[in-house]
Amino acid sequence: VSGIWGRNIKYSIFGESHGKGIGIVIDGFPAGMKLDLEEIQFEMSRRAPGKSELTTSRKEADKVEILSGYFNGATTGTPLCAVIYNTNTISKDYDVIKNIIRPGHADYTGKARYDGFNDFRGSGHFSGRITASLVFAGAIAKQLLEREGIFIGSHIYSIYNIYDTPFDMNNVSLESLSELKQMDFPLFDKTVSSDMKNCILKAKEEEDSVGGIIEAAVINLPVGMGDPFFDSLESTLAHLLFSIPAVKGVEFGAGFKIAGMKGSDANDEFYIENNKIKTHSNNNGGLLGGITNGMPLIFRCAIKPPASIGKLQRTVDLSTGENTELSIQGRHDPSIVLRAVPVVEAAAAMAIADYIFQKGR
Amino acid sequence: VSGIWGRNIKYSIFGESHGKGIGIVIDGFPAGMKLDLEEIQFEMSRRAPGKSELTTSRKEADKVEILSGYFNGATTGTPLCAVIYNTNTISKDYDVIKNIIRPGHADYTGKARYDGFNDFRGSGHFSGRITASLVFAGAIAKQLLEREGIFIGSHIYSIYNIYDTPFDMNNVSLESLSELKQMDFPLFDKTVSSDMKNCILKAKEEEDSVGGIIEAAVINLPVGMGDPFFDSLESTLAHLLFSIPAVKGVEFGAGFKIAGMKGSDANDEFYIENNKIKTHSNNNGGLLGGITNGMPLIFRCAIKPPASIGKLQRTVDLSTGENTELSIQGRHDPSIVLRAVPVVEAAAAMAIADYIFQKGR
Amino acid sequence: VSGIWGRNIKYSIFGESHGKGIGIVIDGFPAGMKLDLEEIQFEMSRRAPGKSELTTSRKEADKVEILSGYFNGATTGTPLCAVIYNTNTISKDYDVIKNIIRPGHADYTGKARYDGFNDFRGSGHFSGRITASLVFAGAIAKQLLEREGIFIGSHIYSIYNIYDTPFDMNNVSLESLSELKQMDFPLFDKTVSSDMKNCILKAKEEEDSVGGIIEAAVINLPVGMGDPFFDSLESTLAHLLFSIPAVKGVEFGAGFKIAGMKGSDANDEFYIENNKIKTHSNNNGGLLGGITNGMPLIFRCAIKPPASIGKLQRTVDLSTGENTELSIQGRHDPSIVLRAVPVVEAAAAMAIADYIFQKGR
Amino acid sequence: VSGIWGRNIKYSIFGESHGKGIGIVIDGFPAGMKLDLEEIQFEMSRRAPGKSELTTSRKEADKVEILSGYFNGATTGTPLCAVIYNTNTISKDYDVIKNIIRPGHADYTGKARYDGFNDFRGSGHFSGRITASLVFAGAIAKQLLEREGIFIGSHIYSIYNIYDTPFDMNNVSLESLSELKQMDFPLFDKTVSSDMKNCILKAKEEEDSVGGIIEAAVINLPVGMGDPFFDSLESTLAHLLFSIPAVKGVEFGAGFKIAGMKGSDANDEFYIENNKIKTHSNNNGGLLGGITNGMPLIFRCAIKPPASIGKLQRTVDLSTGENTELSIQGRHDPSIVLRAVPVVEAAAAMAIADYIFQKGR
Repeated sequence: VSGIWGRNIKYSIFGESHGKGIGIVIDGFPAGMKLDLEEIQFEMSRRAPGKSELTTSRKEADKVEILSGYFNGATTGTPLCAVIYNTNTISKDYDVIKNIIRPGHADYTGKARYDGFNDFRGSGHFSGRITASLVFAGAIAKQLLEREGIFIGSHIYSIYNIYDTPFDMNNVSLESLSELKQMDFPLFDKTVSSDMKNCILKAKEEEDSVGGIIEAAVINLPVGMGDPFFDSLESTLAHLLFSIPAVKGVEFGAGFKIAGMKGSDANDEFYIENNKIKTHSNNNGGLLGGITNGMPLIFRCAIKPPASIGKLQRTVDLSTGENTELSIQGRHDPSIVLRAVPVVEAAAAMAIADYIFQKGR
Repeated sequence: VSGIWGRNIKYSIFGESHGKGIGIVIDGFPAGMKLDLEEIQFEMSRRAPGKSELTTSRKEADKVEILSGYFNGATTGTPLCAVIYNTNTISKDYDVIKNIIRPGHADYTGKARYDGFNDFRGSGHFSGRITASLVFAGAIAKQLLEREGIFIGSHIYSIYNIYDTPFDMNNVSLESLSELKQMDFPLFDKTVSSDMKNCILKAKEEEDSVGGIIEAAVINLPVGMGDPFFDSLESTLAHLLFSIPAVKGVEFGAGFKIAGMKGSDANDEFYIENNKIKTHSNNNGGLLGGITNGMPLIFRCAIKPPASIGKLQRTVDLSTGENTELSIQGRHDPSIVLRAVPVVEAAAAMAIADYIFQKGR
Repeated sequence: VSGIWGRNIKYSIFGESHGKGIGIVIDGFPAGMKLDLEEIQFEMSRRAPGKSELTTSRKEADKVEILSGYFNGATTGTPLCAVIYNTNTISKDYDVIKNIIRPGHADYTGKARYDGFNDFRGSGHFSGRITASLVFAGAIAKQLLEREGIFIGSHIYSIYNIYDTPFDMNNVSLESLSELKQMDFPLFDKTVSSDMKNCILKAKEEEDSVGGIIEAAVINLPVGMGDPFFDSLESTLAHLLFSIPAVKGVEFGAGFKIAGMKGSDANDEFYIENNKIKTHSNNNGGLLGGITNGMPLIFRCAIKPPASIGKLQRTVDLSTGENTELSIQGRHDPSIVLRAVPVVEAAAAMAIADYIFQKGR
Repeated sequence: VSGIWGRNIKYSIFGESHGKGIGIVIDGFPAGMKLDLEEIQFEMSRRAPGKSELTTSRKEADKVEILSGYFNGATTGTPLCAVIYNTNTISKDYDVIKNIIRPGHADYTGKARYDGFNDFRGSGHFSGRITASLVFAGAIAKQLLEREGIFIGSHIYSIYNIYDTPFDMNNVSLESLSELKQMDFPLFDKTVSSDMKNCILKAKEEEDSVGGIIEAAVINLPVGMGDPFFDSLESTLAHLLFSIPAVKGVEFGAGFKIAGMKGSDANDEFYIENNKIKTHSNNNGGLLGGITNGMPLIFRCAIKPPASIGKLQRTVDLSTGENTELSIQGRHDPSIVLRAVPVVEAAAAMAIADYIFQKGR
């Protein structure tokens, strides 16, 4: 039972990369929320493959069909089911992997988990494609948050060894977030753009791939959103972020750097200005005790390089039980960081939306 | 609703630092499990304060009383409730903070979350003391795991800017884990021990504090434990680890370093040896697609420096709405890393135990 | 959040009577279960409308399309999504009720619950049509139970004031259950069949409707299935049974009659025969302390008469705030008891399947 | 995992009849709710044993100790744990039943469920004593409901074959509910009081026991409280009511009688009066589509006669595997109906309180 998540708003995800379709059921959204369908499709297109040479050439329109829970332009309050039918599937590409387990992929572990009955085509339920449903759900969650004035944005903090300027954790403006959202390759420091792109293209050329870091910010969160212990906002965010295939690390505020600090440096001292309490620094990333303090919520995710590479790799053939080698052909992403940007934002939106009505209880 | 966690085994935590007691209800443990009470108390003592000059001088025996679910030396299968009564509480120490919010603490956010009704004494429900209940639950979860041959161990990977040798992620032996467990200050490289301790004592002397990193390993996990998506083992582990106050970052395997790698380096190539499938490297930390691959599960947590420091800090007095300064007196830990070691292990044990019977469904 | 249910197997239901489709996501089914699709469609047809003059003339093939979680003829273990697209919808029939609330229906309460944004066409998400998804899920759950030798069957215990012979609660054979399943109008006492049918047809002629009682039995349950307290098997069964629109009462074993008994009559005395423990009577309906005792599990559901009747009724027009009268035209069931039989069985199958792997934990 | 229940407010129950204590953790209550401790203790005393010759002579003060979540006279919003320590336990009474399973009790099923490791003394976790914790939780839930103007009351509708006057389902006044609450033996028709009491005393004299029915009403519920499908208010109420040991039937409004009605009789026709929508009848017991319609919510529970009787009964000795006979000595209730009244009300209060903040989401 791992396809259902949520406390107040529950999401039920389903689908496989090469099956009939993928989708998500959303339960618990308030009734009467007008949906901006164009905006939703824009978010879908941010993640969609096949748009440039930086991504896989598999083309999927990722057109969402809403089957229920939406009536006369607004949510009904009852479960909303959205389906994205698969169209461009080339299953023969994947026959080879039925027994030759791909390094870095879930072929081996998925087979063990499901006794060999899982749909292995194109990674099946383990495919990054499944995150299209997250983007859909996140797009709706974002609209719910925006109604409360809360905005989420993110940028590519690094590709391989090339870094963008980080967020100024004390000052994140709505303007900067909006600007990032409109960028094809969201960066603060545009001068590193071509280096990053070249790095990705070079990896592609070498039949290799590269990882990177996404840094995100959430602004205008009310003070007091979150919970102690098991539902700390960090817990909830990390839970969803680590659901995204390829995420191997999550940190908040100063993150791992805080481990190398003294309390006198790490503590974010308070001050009051125009009746608003702020902190001089933001090493805690807007969260104290699992609860928002009104400062920008900042987090970072480490995204591993795509596991599918053309380079020859050592592996095992399960049908023979012998060591072998493998060069993965087909259509792959040399880096998934760019396409993961809207997914990370979606996961954050879903996580935070779950707390929107917490004061109700 | 943030004090209850779990899918198959559920934990319900309660208590405040200066109330009558703290505790936990554990529901879903199999019936008939003999409990090694001495071992449980040993784990409690690893976290207990007041044992050396490296920790706070508040002395708490942290003696656990089991109220239910335990009969004739074994679990009954019905809810097990354990209580740790508070004994050594000096509430007057904390009167000052009622309105003067401590930087880095949850005073401000907790007040906002609970409209000022939360028990603020000694951080109340936000106190690190609450983790004693986690250690209890984790001690039981460990015994369940050990019955399956699974072991957890960890070491202090860093204090401030001083680092221990990391785990050899490809080879973690039961012997090394057992050895770490018996150490008062668990390290691989004993030569850094005095440096780390001195660093902590110096921070104490300076009325300051220091952070650090804990690195943990779980061995002998069966292949195929975990789930895709919302209940990936990374998600579950991170969820619980971020529940621990002071954790600001969690990473698996190579963690954030994987973002700077190429796929050809990051991918853990498979090989078969004596009918057992292994990987040449372990950058994924034993997890692929959220599911164990049989290699050691490795993760790291960033622990922030304790927020309570004697050094003068700028803050706000909520009763006057004015800026002020604060020097926190009382009994505090100059570093919480050492005492967090069993807590981190406990959280990991609880997270993993939840998957023990997954094949049942 | 009311469309998701389950502990070990979770179901996420969606859809409206006159929307694009209805369906269900099933998460937590074991991998590798072969599905008998013909049997599933047979169960669907038991509930489907339009088969005889006893039911509504709305014809729906109720053909299920499985979108995910099913591969090479077996469950994958990942979420299984099934959709039933709506085909025969005549929405104009329902325009009248937008403001004139139908007595006995959820028009008024649904509007209040969802601030008027719910899809009101054909009762929308409150429609009995939604139970088609339950029947699908129940058909799969039945196949899981049958693998363990557990069988569910039921009969029409009463229509209006006409009664069938009840189950012999101490002896329920697989043969009798199989026979009931194959009957178009499942009864023990075939002599009451025409009376019951005539009663329904007379109600239809009078533009009225009639209620009835369904009695069900589950056999070959292992001893010890269930839980004390919040997840007693009675609690779980009743929870799901009361989810079925029109159910207004649920009782187990002797049910309400047990309230008029003495302990010496009500207690089911034990005896042992051929190493098997049985009870002389079965007033507890196979359940003691919320847990199966190996005797047939027996329960009854009261089904109210369909609320949609042609007879003139007093009601209120919400658009004017005035009293008015209403005669509901369109295609309606004069009794829903017959079509509810497979729904009741499905709910029971889902409830019981949730405990199948309980010993795993 | 059956000791935890709730969606928005979660309850975690624990304890055994003859262990150290029983209790409950309540998570999700709003912060800042003043608790009327005297009122809570009054509710406890309504259920407490040993007050008259109508109940068991086991005397338990049932004094509740709150360990957490309560500070300065109000709830903190964090988990509230309450413990009732067991004091008057005579365990030797129960030694006999270790192997000789008592008819009507959970001895046999509990043993099977927990592989013989459950605490069998005094029925252990299956004891009616555990419901004391429900009464505590219900007392708090009632206070939350009363803040919203919602009141719950109930009466003994029948003892064996003696009936009280039922609720007038269309008109239930706060006065009548308050009056019932103050009565030692809550009835509308005081003339049946002595008959009922004599019936109980006669059963006691005969070393037998009697069952009965409790009828309850909830008034001033807002229109639109509840949910379709899996969390219909009927589902939630029935779930909790069937958690109470001894409940074998639950019905709403006309209940099982509605199965014998025509739609034209069963439908509750609407009318508007002083801008308030009401129904002429209340056969649906205040619930349509699982959601309140503003009319009194009415339900009934069948309570079976206590299983512990002195009369000789046939049973099985599990240690020998042979048939035997048993006369249960010790302190028992000849009827549990009277003491179950506050338990039923508590379960209803807990169920309904869970919906209080539903519009928040």
